[in-house]
Amino acid sequence: MRTVLVIGIGAGDPDHMTLQAVAALRRADVVFVIDKGDVKDDLLALRTEILGRHRPDGGHRLVTAPEVDRDRGTEVERDDGRYRDVVVDWQDRRAELYREMLATELADGGTGAFLVWGDPSLYDGTLRLLDRVLDGIEGEWAVESIAGISSVAALAAAHRLILNRVGRPVLITTGRRIADGMPADVDDVVVMLDGRTAFATLPPEQRADLHVYWGAYLGTPDELLVAGPLDEVADEILEIRAAARERKGWIMDTYLLRRGADGR
Amino acid sequence: MRTVLVIGIGAGDPDHMTLQAVAALRRADVVFVIDKGDVKDDLLALRTEILGRHRPDGGHRLVTAPEVDRDRGTEVERDDGRYRDVVVDWQDRRAELYREMLATELADGGTGAFLVWGDPSLYDGTLRLLDRVLDGIEGEWAVESIAGISSVAALAAAHRLILNRVGRPVLITTGRRIADGMPADVDDVVVMLDGRTAFATLPPEQRADLHVYWGAYLGTPDELLVAGPLDEVADEILEIRAAARERKGWIMDTYLLRRGADGR
Ligand SMILES: C[S@@+](CC[C@H](N)C(=O)[O-])C[C@H]1O[C@@H](n2cnc3c(N)ncnc32)[C@H](O)[C@@H]1O
Ligand SMILES: C[S@@+](CC[C@H](N)C(=O)[O-])C[C@H]1O[C@@H](n2cnc3c(N)ncnc32)[C@H](O)[C@@H]1O
Repeated sequence: MRTVLVIGIGAGDPDHMTLQAVAALRRADVVFVIDKGDVKDDLLALRTEILGRHRPDGGHRLVTAPEVDRDRGTEVERDDGRYRDVVVDWQDRRAELYREMLATELADGGTGAFLVWGDPSLYDGTLRLLDRVLDGIEGEWAVESIAGISSVAALAAAHRLILNRVGRPVLITTGRRIADGMPADVDDVVVMLDGRTAFATLPPEQRADLHVYWGAYLGTPDELLVAGPLDEVADEILEIRAAARERKGWIMDTYLLRRGADGR
Repeated sequence: MRTVLVIGIGAGDPDHMTLQAVAALRRADVVFVIDKGDVKDDLLALRTEILGRHRPDGGHRLVTAPEVDRDRGTEVERDDGRYRDVVVDWQDRRAELYREMLATELADGGTGAFLVWGDPSLYDGTLRLLDRVLDGIEGEWAVESIAGISSVAALAAAHRLILNRVGRPVLITTGRRIADGMPADVDDVVVMLDGRTAFATLPPEQRADLHVYWGAYLGTPDELLVAGPLDEVADEILEIRAAARERKGWIMDTYLLRRGADGR
């Protein structure tokens, strides 16, 4: 039997690690590291700090799983299925690579760990990838998911927000989706993965009724927070965001859009 | 200046405390405890374990804030506003009581802590109550919210779920809301606060297309998990749930409803 731990390490603050995540990290013989291009340095910094703090004695190996290049040439977004085909193809190649890596690096009885940004259950593909990888691998494998503080929880804490209003729902969605407009039946919407600042392009009649609670680099020393009526603070966020992105070379931001007069 | 910490302690597993929450707990001179009727014993057990583990030396006072009785006689749910009026009235009385408690118990320079189930940002009223309480209190007060692992994150981890499908949204809602049916435009819905097992009363044409991932007493030694096509496992969940509730006297459960053929 081999065990693979998918450990949520929080979205930027090393103190957001849970006691369970710390214990899980200490069980790992091998720590697998997925190489991501852009935000690499800061991810690496957090990972290094966390490993240094909780595995100061070493006792584990660090194995870097190289990110498989997508075929960028055909990665055009369209509705006729070709984008999806390209992605599936890439996922197959990636799964094969991971299958080899796991089989080679983990001895029988061994425990491997993937450190995942935030919580493994939100907009992270590691668990899905492992499903695919372990389907068809030899031997017995167990997967455990260790919950982490997501960027959604970090955003709420930073603004001291309750995400829902009494008895009402909360939607978590992407920048691409919210670009189509606020949903009619949900008044509290958390937006992630918004590289195109969709909040700024909502139709004026929707914007007028919205408050925004925005956070970037949450939990890190670079944390940025802006809150207020969307119409009043949208430009400020765009400016701060552009400047920060320029300065650091990348940005990760999340925000709550809240419909309703007083914003609470 | 006085500081009030609202600390998310996780939804049942003491190891879901974050390092930040542990540190926050250690800063507190006074730990405020809100008395809840039904689930009291298990809440108390978790709280006692957490305090015993992280404040073994004591050094803090435990102050119990008695739950203010609502006027049960008029607490009828209806749409003409009377229910809401009654709640507001009760909230006023409760705020007054807490205002007195905080002013009496916290000395200048002191730090108080409320231990909150799960994450303070999801279906918990403590931050809202504090807003109301500190509005109109004398002196300078600061509030900090400390993120915790919510029952939603705990549910996902227990089932090794990614809550969203690629690029798609997730709705977090209540049993009362989902009783009106699945939303048309969201395929992944987490349901909390469902005392009436709304999943079992969804219209047959909706149920046919749904998978359910159900969890009760998540993170505790009593944890119960059931997953499968809703039509196939709904009765099993109803039975397990009724038996557990009978045995323990209370139940807390959460589930994901997922629309789409294969359930992943
Ligand atoms: C690929 S998703 C990963 C989410 C992660 N699993 C989580 O639980 O937060 C990346 C998105 O998460 C959000 N995010 C992650 N870390 C963040 C941070 N420190 N500050 C603000 N947003 C963050 C951003 O919306 C970003 O586009
Ligand atoms: C008043 S809300 C509090 C939620 C809490 N703030 C959180 O972050 O999980 C209570 C609801 O949370 C869910 N819940 C809390 N703890 C749970 C547990 N250990 N197992 C299953 N569901 C739980 C149930 O749906 C319950 O009705």
